[in-house]
Amino acid sequence: MRKVSILGATGSIGTQTLDVIRKEKDRFQLTAISANSSWKKVIDIINEFNPTYVVLTEEKAYREVKEYCSNIGKNTKILFGMKGLNTIASLPEVDIVVTSVVGMIGLVPTITAIKSGKDIALANKETLVTGGKLVMSEAKKHNVKILPVDSEHGAIFQCLQGNEKSSVNKILLTASGGPFRGKKEYELSEVTVDEALKHPRWNMGKKISIDSATLMNKGLEVIEAHFLFDIDYDQIEVVVHPESVIHSMVEYIDGSVIAQMGSTDMKLPIQYALNYPERKNAVVEKLDFYKMGTLTFEKPDMDTFKPLKLAYEAGKAGGTMPAILNAANECAVDLFLNKRIKFLQIGNILEMCMDKFTIQQNYTLEDILQLDSKVKSYVNENFGK
Amino acid sequence: MRKVSILGATGSIGTQTLDVIRKEKDRFQLTAISANSSWKKVIDIINEFNPTYVVLTEEKAYREVKEYCSNIGKNTKILFGMKGLNTIASLPEVDIVVTSVVGMIGLVPTITAIKSGKDIALANKETLVTGGKLVMSEAKKHNVKILPVDSEHGAIFQCLQGNEKSSVNKILLTASGGPFRGKKEYELSEVTVDEALKHPRWNMGKKISIDSATLMNKGLEVIEAHFLFDIDYDQIEVVVHPESVIHSMVEYIDGSVIAQMGSTDMKLPIQYALNYPERKNAVVEKLDFYKMGTLTFEKPDMDTFKPLKLAYEAGKAGGTMPAILNAANECAVDLFLNKRIKFLQIGNILEMCMDKFTIQQNYTLEDILQLDSKVKSYVNENFGK
Repeated sequence: MRKVSILGATGSIGTQTLDVIRKEKDRFQLTAISANSSWKKVIDIINEFNPTYVVLTEEKAYREVKEYCSNIGKNTKILFGMKGLNTIASLPEVDIVVTSVVGMIGLVPTITAIKSGKDIALANKETLVTGGKLVMSEAKKHNVKILPVDSEHGAIFQCLQGNEKSSVNKILLTASGGPFRGKKEYELSEVTVDEALKHPRWNMGKKISIDSATLMNKGLEVIEAHFLFDIDYDQIEVVVHPESVIHSMVEYIDGSVIAQMGSTDMKLPIQYALNYPERKNAVVEKLDFYKMGTLTFEKPDMDTFKPLKLAYEAGKAGGTMPAILNAANECAVDLFLNKRIKFLQIGNILEMCMDKFTIQQNYTLEDILQLDSKVKSYVNENFGK
Repeated sequence: MRKVSILGATGSIGTQTLDVIRKEKDRFQLTAISANSSWKKVIDIINEFNPTYVVLTEEKAYREVKEYCSNIGKNTKILFGMKGLNTIASLPEVDIVVTSVVGMIGLVPTITAIKSGKDIALANKETLVTGGKLVMSEAKKHNVKILPVDSEHGAIFQCLQGNEKSSVNKILLTASGGPFRGKKEYELSEVTVDEALKHPRWNMGKKISIDSATLMNKGLEVIEAHFLFDIDYDQIEVVVHPESVIHSMVEYIDGSVIAQMGSTDMKLPIQYALNYPERKNAVVEKLDFYKMGTLTFEKPDMDTFKPLKLAYEAGKAGGTMPAILNAANECAVDLFLNKRIKFLQIGNILEMCMDKFTIQQNYTLEDILQLDSKVKSYVNENFGK
C-alpha cells in the first residue's frame, strides 16, 4: 500500500487523483487531504475514503467540516491553514505527497514534504517556477523524486527513461495553442472571460485555462522544464500541436526523437506519477490510430502571445525574475476573471512588472514569498480598483 | 575501439554502415567485411578501411580481389563462401557483427556469431523470420544482444528502454504503405517492376522495395517483432503512416504510447545499434517540426495486400511456416524482378506454398535450410520457366 497525501484534493487535479486512487484501492491509501473552501466536497471525500487528516485553509470551511465530523462522531483530525498543510506534507506514514493546490500556497508545504523525504507528485506549477532552484536542490539533498503530474512534463519524464541526460539535445514541449490559436493581436482586444475559458482540448481549472489562452501556461511549463530536467532554455522548444495527441517529446543528439502520446486525460500522468516506476492498467481511454485523423505542428506566435516570450526572458534572466512573472500573472489572471482588466492587458502587466522589480540572483524561500506579495500588491493597486 | 565485422558490406545497409563508421573513426574499427559479387566496391573498402579479413561469396569476385591484393602487395586475408562468412562472424577480436546480407544466406553465419558471443546488429530479416526461435534461444544462452538495424524495430527497441516488458500492451508497427497505398487489387494487376521499385520514402535495395510494395516487408517485420520482443501476434498492430516520420511505437498497459521519430535515413538506426546503449552526435538530418506538415495514419488494406495477412497467418501457425512463407517470397520476388510473373502473383504463390508444405513445429537449422531450398525449387519449377 502506498500512502498518499493530497494537497488540494477538491480541484481539477485533486479530483482526478481521487479517481485514480478509487480505481486502484488495493494499491493506494488516502491518508490526508487538504482543500480551501469546498467543504461539501471534503465531506464526500471523508465519507468515501476516510482519510486520517483533513486540512482546510478557509475558516468557514474548516468550521463546517469540524462540526460535521463531530456530529457524526468521526475522529478525523481536522487541521487549519498553512500549519495544517505542513503537517500533512510531512506525516511519517505517508509515502507520496501530491501537490495539486493552485498558486504560490503550494511552495512552502512542497518544500516541507521534500525535507521530510517524501516523493512528490508535483502538479503545482508555481513551486518550480518561483522556487525551482531551492526545490530541486532540496530534492537532491533529501534524495526524493519529483514526479511531474502534468501531461507535458510527465511525457518528457517518460521520454527520458532509459537514456543518459548527456545525450539529450532538446526538449520539444507541445502546446495545443489554446482557444485563440491563429488569432492576431487586434482580434484579441475584446475577448470575453467565457471565450478565454473555452479550451479546445483539455478540461481544466479557470486559472490554467486563462494561462492556456495567453500561452503563459506554456511559458510556465518552459521554466518548470528548465528546473525539473536541468536543461538550458535554448534547449527547450515549444511546438504548437493542436490535436494534443503528442504530449511532448525529447530530441536526442543522434537526431532520434522520442515522443509520448495518449488521450487528453490528466488521469494518465497522475496514474504514472503515483505508480512510478511501474505502469498499471489504463484508467483512461486508449488511442486509436486508425481513427486519429491528422496530427499537425506549428511554430508558436510569440508576438501575439507575448506571455510565452516573456516567460523565456524571465527564465533566462534567472534569479527571482520567474517569481516576479508568476506573481504578476496570478494577479492579472484574477483581475481578468473578475472583469477588471482586458485580455491583452495580462501580457502588458507582466511586462511592466518585469521592468519595475529588480532581479535578485540568490534568494531564500522568505525572499520569494515577500516578493510575491509585493508584486501582487503593486498589480492590485494599479489595476484592481 | 569497437571492432566491427560486416556481413554484406556492399549493399544498401552495408554501405550506410560504412558511412557511420567513416564518421566515427575514433570509435570503430572495421575488422572484416563480406560481399557477394561487387568486387570493385570491395577494393574501394580495402583501400579506405584496410580490414584484416575480406570474404567473397561469388567465385569470380573472390579471384579479382585476391589478385588485386596480391598485385599491390596487400596482406588482407581473402576468404571464400560460407566458410569465410562463418570465420568473420566468429573472429575473437570482433565485438559486434553487422549482418546485412540479404536473404537466407544470413542465417548460418548469424548463428555462428551468436555462438561465439558476439553482439549482433541485425539487418537481415530472414534470420529472425525463418530461424527466430533458434536465434533468440541461442542469443539468450550466449548472453548476446540482438540489436535491430532497421527503422521499425530500432524504433520499438528505443521505445522499450526504461520500461518493464510486462507493461507492454502492444507494438504499433508503422508502415509507409509503399508505392501502391490506396490502390485496389484490380489496379495492381499490370504494374511494372519499375513502378513497384519506386518507394515513396525510403531508398532501399530491390528485394526490400518489392516487399514494401506488396506489404510483405511489413509482414516479415511483424514476424521479426514477434521473436525479437517475445510478443504475441495479437499484440502487434500495423499502422499505415505514409509520412514515415514515426518509425514505430509501443503502447503500454496504462494507455501511454511511446513513439520514436526521425528522418527517413537508415544511418540513424545503424548508428544507434552500433553505439548502444550510448547515443552519439547525429550523422543524419534532424526533424524540424515547424516544417513537418501533417502526420496521418490508416488501417492497412490486408485484402488488397494479401502478403501482410499471410504473414500474420504464417506467424500464428508457427513452426516452419514463416520459413516456408519467406522462401516462397524470396523466390517470387526474384521471378517478378525478372519479369517472369506479375505483381499479384507474388501473393498467390505465397498462399499456394503455405497450403502445399506441411508445417513442422520443432525444427533444426538444417531443417530450415532444406525446407528453404525445397520451397524455392517448387516455386521455380512451377513459375520460373
